[in-house]
Amino acid sequence: MNYIPININEKFSKFDNHWSPRVIAEMNNYQIKLAKVQGEFVWHDHQDTDEMFFIIDGNLDIEFRDGKVSLGAGEMFVVPKGTEHRPVAQDECHIMLVEPKGVVNTGNAESALSAENDIWI
Amino acid sequence: MNYIPININEKFSKFDNHWSPRVIAEMNNYQIKLAKVQGEFVWHDHQDTDEMFFIIDGNLDIEFRDGKVSLGAGEMFVVPKGTEHRPVAQDECHIMLVEPKGVVNTGNAESALSAENDIWI
Repeated sequence: MNYIPININEKFSKFDNHWSPRVIAEMNNYQIKLAKVQGEFVWHDHQDTDEMFFIIDGNLDIEFRDGKVSLGAGEMFVVPKGTEHRPVAQDECHIMLVEPKGVVNTGNAESALSAENDIWI
Repeated sequence: MNYIPININEKFSKFDNHWSPRVIAEMNNYQIKLAKVQGEFVWHDHQDTDEMFFIIDGNLDIEFRDGKVSLGAGEMFVVPKGTEHRPVAQDECHIMLVEPKGVVNTGNAESALSAENDIWI
């Protein structure tokens, strides 16, 4: 049997929407997602889960109420659960997310930026 | 407060051992690990968990009893729980793993390649 690799660049070529994570794989009850982001997201938190950000291309700041972290390609950060944060990307940035299945991108915040969940590419 | 990015290349520069995963981050009860691998690993499975492989640099084959998947940089594969597999890298390959805290690299197989668990860098 031939098994198929999941190619990140090929998956990124399949969508252009910003702030709209796409699922590329599942591991137990977790999902691996890709997102293209640009501009300022909304302040939000996830009460029930940490959230892993890994930068594939570009630069992303994650702002916190008491500081921020500036991430470039090949850098990672885990936002602890319950911690208010706001991702900000001046230019388009490509990121990988790992989080439990069912997590909504805007967490506790009601927003026009809330994306449909569980969209596979 | 300044938060510190986790830089993958900087972390890879800190160890040389093959088949000895190092923890770089935790997310809930999961760990993100880096490993340098070369040669043939042992056949094994993980009865309780899927295992995510993401190739950072180089090439890795994951052999199964009924086939294999060949992965290059920027490619990912999730090995389903209970599935016998054997990673093989002709040349040194740098990989990222995501799996629950406590998973032993050799799974069900007793081997000289069983690595100490939970080593942070």
